[in-house]
Amino acid sequence: MYQNFDKVNTISSLGGGPIGAGWAAHFLSRGFKVNSYIHTIEEKSSYESIIETAWISLKEIGLQKSASLDNLKISTNLEEVLQDSDFVQESIPEILELKCKFYQKLGELVPEHVVIASSTSGLTMTKIQKLCSTPDRTVIGHPFNPPYLLPLVEIVGGKQTSQSTVEWASAFYKIAGKEPLVMQKEIPGFVATRLQEALWREALHMVANGEATPEQIDTALINGPAPRMAVQGQCMAFHVACGNGGMATNLDQFGPALKLPWTRLKAPKLTKNLRDKMVEGCLRMSEGRKFENLALQRDQSIVAILNAIKKSQN
Amino acid sequence: MYQNFDKVNTISSLGGGPIGAGWAAHFLSRGFKVNSYIHTIEEKSSYESIIETAWISLKEIGLQKSASLDNLKISTNLEEVLQDSDFVQESIPEILELKCKFYQKLGELVPEHVVIASSTSGLTMTKIQKLCSTPDRTVIGHPFNPPYLLPLVEIVGGKQTSQSTVEWASAFYKIAGKEPLVMQKEIPGFVATRLQEALWREALHMVANGEATPEQIDTALINGPAPRMAVQGQCMAFHVACGNGGMATNLDQFGPALKLPWTRLKAPKLTKNLRDKMVEGCLRMSEGRKFENLALQRDQSIVAILNAIKKSQN
Repeated sequence: MYQNFDKVNTISSLGGGPIGAGWAAHFLSRGFKVNSYIHTIEEKSSYESIIETAWISLKEIGLQKSASLDNLKISTNLEEVLQDSDFVQESIPEILELKCKFYQKLGELVPEHVVIASSTSGLTMTKIQKLCSTPDRTVIGHPFNPPYLLPLVEIVGGKQTSQSTVEWASAFYKIAGKEPLVMQKEIPGFVATRLQEALWREALHMVANGEATPEQIDTALINGPAPRMAVQGQCMAFHVACGNGGMATNLDQFGPALKLPWTRLKAPKLTKNLRDKMVEGCLRMSEGRKFENLALQRDQSIVAILNAIKKSQN
Repeated sequence: MYQNFDKVNTISSLGGGPIGAGWAAHFLSRGFKVNSYIHTIEEKSSYESIIETAWISLKEIGLQKSASLDNLKISTNLEEVLQDSDFVQESIPEILELKCKFYQKLGELVPEHVVIASSTSGLTMTKIQKLCSTPDRTVIGHPFNPPYLLPLVEIVGGKQTSQSTVEWASAFYKIAGKEPLVMQKEIPGFVATRLQEALWREALHMVANGEATPEQIDTALINGPAPRMAVQGQCMAFHVACGNGGMATNLDQFGPALKLPWTRLKAPKLTKNLRDKMVEGCLRMSEGRKFENLALQRDQSIVAILNAIKKSQN
């Protein structure tokens, strides 16, 4: 039904801000043609400047053979930008009414076999797609800033999105060099933003109460949990930290600590069901590797990160 | 009053678990002699195995000239371990009564000019030092796991800790290759654990509600916020993401988003005072650098991280 992946040549990146420009840079680096829509011509120079900055780093990540900045066209004419489009990535401002009307227009302008993905981090597709005449091919494709470097794209449909759209988007993002994460449920903030937001709110509480300064927050993250979290997510980090006992030991032994006031966020009840889901997830991720191997792998990657950061900042 | 830093040769690392062994590995790598106290002789082989694993990575970080595994002595005799000690790092189990009695004993056995630091993540020094006859030289020195790789050490005294102890510990950890973070207030979980715990609890909520699996939590972190957070803490990440407007734009524009249900953690009230503290903190960290430079530095370090992780896992 949708475009064959090998026939996807031209991407429309809609929106003149850092996310739209970041997406354009990413797709250009992967060898696509990119037609960009900006709202006013005043946005053009900052748009180009973001892409130029991104290009320096994208070259170090490695460009596709056919990648070129010459494949970029920027225009304020939406119809022109959507011409010959094989995939639409929308990143216009986060105002629901604006998005709804925009998707109504896209429904008319974009052929039905082309998938339309939204970069929104705060709105749901169920709400965005309400006025669109072809809502089944609209889907969330939420990147993480900067979108040209961080691999994550969270994918989830709205009530009217078809399953085949979710599948197509997931497969396409993967081909386009991203790490797709298809969500089961449409919840506000998706996965990564929810996790980050919990941390962020705790940080704001600490600053508000004079318990830490912004500098201390950042120092703590950079030198503490973050380098490990870039290598092992929090689940596997706790799994491996508990040695042979793994996540089971973590929850059975430290479960009571969930009641301690270590953050203002109340913990969920640690039911057997939740415990088992966590343990089984970590065992799946371990893929039979012994904890000593997991710990050594973690350490080797942390060393690589610490040395790489040091080198990149000299 | 306390030991001159150049006369600190011998560290006592107390506690036979991964934190005690991790500290021993770290201090050995920095050229110190380490006398380790383990509770029973059965702990010895796993203790040695942790140090051997750590040593592989510590060699890649870079050992001090005089560093050697021959400088390690492991014993179940506390008095022997504390002989000639210039600094005590305590990492025994997280049971308040046990710690209190242990600090009572340490108060008798350790000369008064030697600082005693606790690795506790869950208890406060005010409570731990209650039975100690010399509480003024006891202080929290909380590492992040693995303690031989992650640089962070959070330092905070209890009610009876003297300011000079906090200062000595901070200076000493810095000399010993760590990144000390001296806290203003004694709060449960300190800084890094609080931030991590908020994120962790949100993750548990999501798994409990069937909104995400442990694999999805980890995929989201590894490919989304974590690599950036290892380079820029969350405060600077948001500051730079908002371009020239920085943290002021972030809070003034996205402040209302704090009321959205993006996490179960209720946000603090965004008062002018909190806003200004956040903005001023980010401006201090920017040290006058333009946002384009900050963004490019961020990108270069993220590229270095992503490439380093990829290489280390091949």
